[in-house]
Amino acid sequence: MEKPYVVGIDIGGTNTVFGVVDARGTVLYSGSIKTGKYSEIEEYVSALAQGLKQVIDQAGGPEKIKGIGVGAPNGNFFNGCIEFAPNLPWKGKIPLAQMISEAVDGIPVALTNDANAAAIGEMTYGAARGMKDFIVITLGTGVGSGIVIGGNLVYGHDGFAGELGHVIVRRNNGRLCGCGRQGCLEAYTSATGVARTAREYLEIRKDESVLRDLDPAEITSKDVYDAAMKNDKIALEIFEATGTMLGEAFADFIAFSSPEAIILFGGLTKAGDLLMNPIKRALDKNILKIYAGKTKLLFSQLKESDAAVLGASALGWEVKEQNPALDL
Amino acid sequence: MEKPYVVGIDIGGTNTVFGVVDARGTVLYSGSIKTGKYSEIEEYVSALAQGLKQVIDQAGGPEKIKGIGVGAPNGNFFNGCIEFAPNLPWKGKIPLAQMISEAVDGIPVALTNDANAAAIGEMTYGAARGMKDFIVITLGTGVGSGIVIGGNLVYGHDGFAGELGHVIVRRNNGRLCGCGRQGCLEAYTSATGVARTAREYLEIRKDESVLRDLDPAEITSKDVYDAAMKNDKIALEIFEATGTMLGEAFADFIAFSSPEAIILFGGLTKAGDLLMNPIKRALDKNILKIYAGKTKLLFSQLKESDAAVLGASALGWEVKEQNPALDL
Repeated sequence: MEKPYVVGIDIGGTNTVFGVVDARGTVLYSGSIKTGKYSEIEEYVSALAQGLKQVIDQAGGPEKIKGIGVGAPNGNFFNGCIEFAPNLPWKGKIPLAQMISEAVDGIPVALTNDANAAAIGEMTYGAARGMKDFIVITLGTGVGSGIVIGGNLVYGHDGFAGELGHVIVRRNNGRLCGCGRQGCLEAYTSATGVARTAREYLEIRKDESVLRDLDPAEITSKDVYDAAMKNDKIALEIFEATGTMLGEAFADFIAFSSPEAIILFGGLTKAGDLLMNPIKRALDKNILKIYAGKTKLLFSQLKESDAAVLGASALGWEVKEQNPALDL
Repeated sequence: MEKPYVVGIDIGGTNTVFGVVDARGTVLYSGSIKTGKYSEIEEYVSALAQGLKQVIDQAGGPEKIKGIGVGAPNGNFFNGCIEFAPNLPWKGKIPLAQMISEAVDGIPVALTNDANAAAIGEMTYGAARGMKDFIVITLGTGVGSGIVIGGNLVYGHDGFAGELGHVIVRRNNGRLCGCGRQGCLEAYTSATGVARTAREYLEIRKDESVLRDLDPAEITSKDVYDAAMKNDKIALEIFEATGTMLGEAFADFIAFSSPEAIILFGGLTKAGDLLMNPIKRALDKNILKIYAGKTKLLFSQLKESDAAVLGASALGWEVKEQNPALDL
């Protein structure tokens, strides 16, 4: 009998969330641990395994689980390692897929970065069902991407393809990005980028804004959203500028892989049409004629609270019994 | 017995060149006709078929030919059509693969654009043998690209993926491109782009240059190359600027598909190190850390006079007996 469930694990800098998921994308049992609490990777894996065993037992035991998928920053699908992840407590190259598999009686584990997991999640359960060529753009603290071409996720020759948050959108005088370079898409269109734009606008401009009531250093993208909802002119223009930069960048992405859809995922997508309308306008204005009107712009269809776990879990359906992590 | 040969056809705005090619990439018999001489597509196909029959007979007849590959501007692999090619005499959507196949007793024909053909050619006979992830950039009158991911050419959902000559490298005040937009890579780094840069430099700057002896309107990239070979300062700076823009753009391409190599193809590559050195410097300076030093920069290894026919012919090894063009 085909094993009916998979497990998804989403590793963030603060929390690690996991759950048992069925073939329709329902999270049946879930749990979490604090990532930051474990400075030693062995302790972390041991705590994680304990949590996993609980939800796996609730689901009927390990023989019900086809595979485990992990979404983690700087996760390398090819070797199952987390490599030099700046926001995680463990340094260097960590063979996490293998460690987790060994800690849960050999259930096969596959690992990739969180944006790739989101893309596989959309293809398995979400907005990209039935699509073979699409790009997921994750708009959160950073900007990530998962690229699917011909039904396969693009890993590149080293496992690290798809860092579209780090294409340069301002070649001269660009904002300093967390990666150390200047002018990256992420520096402008992430949630933190939106907050930076707000501080910049408030400093340079003179017009009124409800955002002026806040401590500039504390402004978040949520504040900008709330202000825009009150029709605040500066806040509206910040979303207009953010969406425009995304739409311009998308025109270039389409020239690369000509996807059927670009799917937006992550916290910033709560802005809805505030973000989507300027993206559409900028894309229409900047697209090469041969691609005009062909690529759909969509929001993620994964339920937000479950999205990260669902995305990671989708990888669990694809994992081979012979865990690639064991071929190190 | 396996059929030992393929036929490659390269369709340019001026000439159509074709040849019978063996498995090692040797052009055994070749011929050409003038593309521009035939304003009616039927006449063109009839003249082409006559030429093809000659070389095919020289090779031992149709039963020796596994397939025919065609490289043509705006060629769509999915339906075998040339679609709205601005530099060809025939307007609209031309089912060329099917027309050629019918004219040569049903030998299967596959068609794609010239840059994609170059990529398949490099993979089959050239610098990308054994690679599964690479990008070919063609630097000629225009700038084109053929992208290979996981061993497959990237066609996108519509057959037109890989127009990297039309990513925007100058967002503000960019040069007008032939595509009608501003700031495309092609407007700067094609052979014509190099000539434009020369005219721009000569007008703006005051320093001496052997290029000043030429009619500015007539300057070609070859003139700039010749001047650079004489150590002309302006000419050297033009190649420096051209290579820098390519290297900057390559850093973004690598963030997309993380290729094992980027391979340069086409007339402008005759500039050799004049072009390659600044590309390498700009790439090193602009690459995201995770990719640093991983992607090789190579020149095409296809013999120049045969390269276009070889590229197209490589598609002939892959073509299915059941011609996709017949599924229109």
